[in-house]
Amino acid sequence: MNFLNRYSNIIEKEVFDLVLPKQPANLYEPLKYFLKLGGKRIRPILTLLAGEIFGAKTEDLIKAALAVELFHNFTLIHDDIMDKAPLRRNQETVHERWNSSIAILAGDVLFVKAYEVLGTCPENFLKNLFSIFSKTAREVCEGQQMDMDFEEKSSVTEAEYLEMIRLKTSVLLGCALEMGAIMGNSSEKERQNIYNFGIHIGLAFQIQDDILDLFGDPEKVGKQIGGDVICNKKTLLSIIAKSKANEVDLKLLNSLQLDENLEFKIKTTANLYERLGVRDYCEQKMIDHYNTSINYLNKIENNYSKKKLINLANYLLNREY
Amino acid sequence: MNFLNRYSNIIEKEVFDLVLPKQPANLYEPLKYFLKLGGKRIRPILTLLAGEIFGAKTEDLIKAALAVELFHNFTLIHDDIMDKAPLRRNQETVHERWNSSIAILAGDVLFVKAYEVLGTCPENFLKNLFSIFSKTAREVCEGQQMDMDFEEKSSVTEAEYLEMIRLKTSVLLGCALEMGAIMGNSSEKERQNIYNFGIHIGLAFQIQDDILDLFGDPEKVGKQIGGDVICNKKTLLSIIAKSKANEVDLKLLNSLQLDENLEFKIKTTANLYERLGVRDYCEQKMIDHYNTSINYLNKIENNYSKKKLINLANYLLNREY
Repeated sequence: MNFLNRYSNIIEKEVFDLVLPKQPANLYEPLKYFLKLGGKRIRPILTLLAGEIFGAKTEDLIKAALAVELFHNFTLIHDDIMDKAPLRRNQETVHERWNSSIAILAGDVLFVKAYEVLGTCPENFLKNLFSIFSKTAREVCEGQQMDMDFEEKSSVTEAEYLEMIRLKTSVLLGCALEMGAIMGNSSEKERQNIYNFGIHIGLAFQIQDDILDLFGDPEKVGKQIGGDVICNKKTLLSIIAKSKANEVDLKLLNSLQLDENLEFKIKTTANLYERLGVRDYCEQKMIDHYNTSINYLNKIENNYSKKKLINLANYLLNREY
Repeated sequence: MNFLNRYSNIIEKEVFDLVLPKQPANLYEPLKYFLKLGGKRIRPILTLLAGEIFGAKTEDLIKAALAVELFHNFTLIHDDIMDKAPLRRNQETVHERWNSSIAILAGDVLFVKAYEVLGTCPENFLKNLFSIFSKTAREVCEGQQMDMDFEEKSSVTEAEYLEMIRLKTSVLLGCALEMGAIMGNSSEKERQNIYNFGIHIGLAFQIQDDILDLFGDPEKVGKQIGGDVICNKKTLLSIIAKSKANEVDLKLLNSLQLDENLEFKIKTTANLYERLGVRDYCEQKMIDHYNTSINYLNKIENNYSKKKLINLANYLLNREY
């Protein structure tokens, strides 16, 4: 993905050049540490690409793109505390390396920094940029809360699950894209189209993530298979399985939840999901959202930059291109 | 303080009327609960009063005032987690009533809400409003981190302590005032004067808080005396005491830190602080900052609303007026 590298290098440089005070060291060191853990920088790249489509200036776009990336990292630091996650990108999480109080505050100040950077965008765009950014930030919090609530709930519907991943993941992709469109002075209609492209690519990506966790190639996925099954996590797969299972299958699903033979648990769950048509169903859902996203993109007048967004979508969804 | 009631009622109504979604209930219920705990709403009142001085429109001011109050409440929710505080205004804190994850997220979404409300201010003020608001929010985080760092440090200088309370408390008062001035189209110079009024009133107030904790009238202060001494908290008093103490007094101070007879500990500390001139020193510091604050206010052309700010300052510092 040569063209992606060029964009991610732009973002990487911005993140690297971000001026942060030295003191208090316990506030800013954790932040610098976390930002250096890297990542694919997909969200800010979306802002750059969307801005290109609508003819926005790169120097304007970069600030908004950086704000999106900083916000995303803020959510990761706080989510890691809530999820008690020990690792992020194979490195210690902030609350693990320092402590929870420091991680809360590092997240808070990163969130401020995101707004501060966004505030350096040209004045005529600020109202719209702040509006979509704040709405999105609020929705991401709602998504995280729904996700936490699901852990306690005995049953979650497909609609609830899709709403959760829309809020937790998709809206930020939509926002990243729409901010690019805003700075390209696009119409309300075009803003909606590019936003919806992001929503559905996000849904497709998240559903794919659920599928790959159980059915992916461990080497390609880069992590052990079946993590969600091991910890009985509610995913689109498990929700659909429950809805498709007859009484006997339900009993099997319930007993598998308690099974301590993990290899058996994963293999049997995978087989059952295949037999119940869960995998096919979810793959079709993923394809549907992918197609919907491309349809939204096609409503926007064609040009070279749009092709890049399609390439990025295909890259995210591991497709040939 | 009749004139204050009128302003605090305006704010109370705004807080009460704040539209928050019903779902996810675990996100928004804790928030509604916390906002209902009340408070003196000093910060948003400062915005309203400063705006009056500079002739800003009330309907514009209210949004910025509400944003300041929401931001302040966000910091309280997160500070309570970090401080492991069980109570806030005699009611359970959010992390105590629900849990830390919910409190982190309730704080986050309240912070977003603050920005969202600020974004509804007139477009021509947004750049300046967001700029001072984000700078202040960042500084408040820095102040909280310094405060946490002090717990681990063996010694803290007077300058470090004053910088900590400036960041943790004063800058938000300054920001609240300056936002009112911004919406009154005041000059840069006037913005600085009103901001500095807030900084020094904040310092005076916080120093007074330290003094009252040990030397206040329990009935007027509304809490038990000596709380800071009991938990060996670093305050301006303890820092000055250490700097004024000779070897013998230092030994006494150190042994008092470990003393389990709390009544004796408080009384002996208070006597020692009196004898060392700590109380006088701190009271003079407080008066100095009060006078400095009034000097800054006097640089602004006189009018009726300015008198209200002086009344508010006197009210905060328990003075006759």
